[in-house]
Amino acid sequence: MIKAAIVGYGNLGRGALLALTAAKDMECVGIFTRRDPSKVSPCADVKVYAVDELKKFKGEIDVLVLCGGSATDLPATTEKYLKDFNTVDSFDTHAKIPEYFGKLDKVAKENGTLAAISIGWDPGLFSITRMLFGAILPDGKDYTFWGKGVSQGHSDAIRRIKGVKNAIQYTIPIEAAMDAVRSGKNPELSAREKHLRECFVVAEDGADLEAIEREIKEMPNYFAEYDTVVHFIDEDTLKKEHGKLAHGGFVMRTGKTTEENSHLLELAIKLDSNPEFTGSVLVSYARAVAKMAKEGVTGALTVFDIPIKYLSPKSPEELRSTLL
Amino acid sequence: MIKAAIVGYGNLGRGALLALTAAKDMECVGIFTRRDPSKVSPCADVKVYAVDELKKFKGEIDVLVLCGGSATDLPATTEKYLKDFNTVDSFDTHAKIPEYFGKLDKVAKENGTLAAISIGWDPGLFSITRMLFGAILPDGKDYTFWGKGVSQGHSDAIRRIKGVKNAIQYTIPIEAAMDAVRSGKNPELSAREKHLRECFVVAEDGADLEAIEREIKEMPNYFAEYDTVVHFIDEDTLKKEHGKLAHGGFVMRTGKTTEENSHLLELAIKLDSNPEFTGSVLVSYARAVAKMAKEGVTGALTVFDIPIKYLSPKSPEELRSTLL
Repeated sequence: MIKAAIVGYGNLGRGALLALTAAKDMECVGIFTRRDPSKVSPCADVKVYAVDELKKFKGEIDVLVLCGGSATDLPATTEKYLKDFNTVDSFDTHAKIPEYFGKLDKVAKENGTLAAISIGWDPGLFSITRMLFGAILPDGKDYTFWGKGVSQGHSDAIRRIKGVKNAIQYTIPIEAAMDAVRSGKNPELSAREKHLRECFVVAEDGADLEAIEREIKEMPNYFAEYDTVVHFIDEDTLKKEHGKLAHGGFVMRTGKTTEENSHLLELAIKLDSNPEFTGSVLVSYARAVAKMAKEGVTGALTVFDIPIKYLSPKSPEELRSTLL
Repeated sequence: MIKAAIVGYGNLGRGALLALTAAKDMECVGIFTRRDPSKVSPCADVKVYAVDELKKFKGEIDVLVLCGGSATDLPATTEKYLKDFNTVDSFDTHAKIPEYFGKLDKVAKENGTLAAISIGWDPGLFSITRMLFGAILPDGKDYTFWGKGVSQGHSDAIRRIKGVKNAIQYTIPIEAAMDAVRSGKNPELSAREKHLRECFVVAEDGADLEAIEREIKEMPNYFAEYDTVVHFIDEDTLKKEHGKLAHGGFVMRTGKTTEENSHLLELAIKLDSNPEFTGSVLVSYARAVAKMAKEGVTGALTVFDIPIKYLSPKSPEELRSTLL
């Protein structure tokens, strides 16, 4: 049995716990939290510890599934955990991945540990797809579409506006753009042509709704480059109708092998629960980390470096005879 | 530059040559054929040799792209080539893969060479997809659909019938079955429910068309288990309208993480030319074989064993900063 532990118990930690519970070759040693452990109620029968106790478990945990956020948690803590443990994380700040990788690779190699970074669906499953599609069809172009799903970053940006009590923002891929890609036209698509942004906003009593809507629509980087639709609703409706954590997306590539012959490759995912799915991806890579660490591999790895045979509980022989 | 050579110049060899010509980090040392080299006219400027001359190139070729068939060519020859060269092949007789793998793994290890076997889209890209999807969502079920495209095996089976001059058989996935899978119902689907078989047959003058149609539809393993449609056409129409080598397919998996939440993962490919696409996959894995052999890896490998970073001409740093 592979011994795993979960660090951080929010939506993602809960998703990872569900996946660990379902994995027959893995067990969850415990959840480690910065909160008061007595205040955490896990969705499965597992012990909860204060994160300060983690050090005592050195040698007893094969891999830590880090379920903190990419903005502050992971950059501040992964390095520290890597001194004593192997880790897997979902670091998703694309622009900062090279720096994060370099830092962790050094610490892991110095300490004889292994870190799988940026695991999930994007980065993660979508990265694998972009890389494979591009290597096979070099004379082509790839496109990633996200949604329909909630963007936490965009929702937060709206919540910071004066007069806004609560908000949820959906990123919605535009069908016409996807169809243009599928047709093999290799279109140049602006941000506005690829995604629509739909916002559901709860305003404070007496707030200037027109001003809020204008401020959202004109916000650079977040909304100004997109067509944005704003709906004002009450808190009850928001809670009732927009509490789902569904998400999804598409990776497409069209490429030519000759002037006459082109090919369309497409991955589509549709998730009822983004954190439960991401937790499942993390746990399959936690399995890979535990196995590779046992073989003596150290340093930082991404989805590009890890042979996928390690993700499965099946033996290489079984994989060859049943899935190849 | 990675030095590759192509063994066998049919449709697949031509596809591999196109891909090698497009790869900026690879060059084609030559085509090796069992035919009279003067009778082979490659689609790019490359030398053609008799296959008997191959031995003279030992040490001068990093990887052989084997473009022979799975029925007789590959089982008879790959072992021999592996004594002197690294190889990549598209062996696709699913049931015989374990035996083929075992035999080549032994020879390659004894000779310090490397063989990537069963590379293409199925087995190959579809195998990767089935494995990844299954490892991430263990509580689910996967489905593979093929087509619309020509099945060489089924076309050949029709051509062996008395009174048949020529024939082309299309495998067509049934939309209703795909929609049932996408709906998350995890249906049990029979062969008949998944694929339709459409046959275009040129009969000899005076042949008994009814007898031919009956013999096709009742042929066990090939047609009896399917709904089969038979059209009789003339040779000109067959050549004009059914000479395309288009193909495609789908891998789908729906799986649950909780009772309420299920997820749909789907890969879809649509190929104008099956051999050109398969040749492109072979060449990206030829790149991987050359790189891994240089690092000292020996034996037989499948898509499950090869980290995908090796498929790309880009450096690991570039992959992390641009595709992750």
